[in-house]
Amino acid sequence: MSKTLWKPGTMIYPLPAVMVSCGSEPDEYNIITIAWTGTICTEPPMCYISVRPHRYSYDIIKKNGDFVINLTTKKLARATDWCGVRSGSKFNKFKEMGLTAEKATFVKSPLIKESPVNIECKVIEVKELGVHHMFISEVLGIHADNQYMNESNGAFHFEESRPICYSHGKYYELGDFIGKFGFSVKKKSKRKGKK
Amino acid sequence: MSKTLWKPGTMIYPLPAVMVSCGSEPDEYNIITIAWTGTICTEPPMCYISVRPHRYSYDIIKKNGDFVINLTTKKLARATDWCGVRSGSKFNKFKEMGLTAEKATFVKSPLIKESPVNIECKVIEVKELGVHHMFISEVLGIHADNQYMNESNGAFHFEESRPICYSHGKYYELGDFIGKFGFSVKKKSKRKGKK
Repeated sequence: MSKTLWKPGTMIYPLPAVMVSCGSEPDEYNIITIAWTGTICTEPPMCYISVRPHRYSYDIIKKNGDFVINLTTKKLARATDWCGVRSGSKFNKFKEMGLTAEKATFVKSPLIKESPVNIECKVIEVKELGVHHMFISEVLGIHADNQYMNESNGAFHFEESRPICYSHGKYYELGDFIGKFGFSVKKKSKRKGKK
Repeated sequence: MSKTLWKPGTMIYPLPAVMVSCGSEPDEYNIITIAWTGTICTEPPMCYISVRPHRYSYDIIKKNGDFVINLTTKKLARATDWCGVRSGSKFNKFKEMGLTAEKATFVKSPLIKESPVNIECKVIEVKELGVHHMFISEVLGIHADNQYMNESNGAFHFEESRPICYSHGKYYELGDFIGKFGFSVKKKSKRKGKK
């Protein structure tokens, strides 16, 4: 194996491609697609999104101090991509993509009804890192689609929603299941990935 | 579609599952697997990892002020999981997993040779958020395996390394290709995903 040294860049992949919804009232509601996102702390549950200041959603999120992360699926792939390349200054993205804005429980920003998981977030700090500013945020609540819930054991089968991810400029579905966390240390008498 | 409101938690998925290598000399070299990672700024290129302070790698990274993010693949899945559940206080993880530590170019921490992409990172700030502390870091350089490089056009086909991701406690391969960034606004005369 030989390797080439590249100049510094952004090469952590695969990443989620989430639709972030924002706005305090219907006229202000907007959606921006973001891959620069992730969990930064388990307890308290905290996450971040990084946004360029010239993006239409930036001022809205900064003013209101909250947003909603909406996870995306194969079915939402076109809307996910479209909301990442078009601007809310020219389009009503909910209307154009046929998406439904629903009232959140804790924040002003709306949920996207068609997403299987909505994560309500409150901004704690804005870090001006460079071309992106990072919104360090606390998770206030999560809405999860009951159709992926196994009622008998309470397990949430997110994979059944056909989640998508973003890797080096391309969108993919999730592929073959490899194993559950900890599979490498399970006793051999148990099957890999068995609960 | 009906939804249930969950208490706050960590539900942003799918995520990368990276092996982070650290240590200033062979006796100190260690590997920790992390999903709480991502890009936080494009220019300058910045990323983060969040680590619990009781983890063996935490003090090593804090002391040396650098680490390497090594992307993971199907072939590295067992090592990825194992390095996430075992502790460097008890095991030499490179040796146990048959991985090769290579000198990095800019940082003290070693690269994992078997990984297709190594990202050298320098810690800028440690944010004590809660049970996790976030290492806000700058990317200094990237090593990319030439076997995934298309020499004729310079494109890097990361997907050919069979990258894995982590989603709600499970590891998956990447699945079907959906489209390139911007596919939703391409003229109809062009095929979806065509360059």
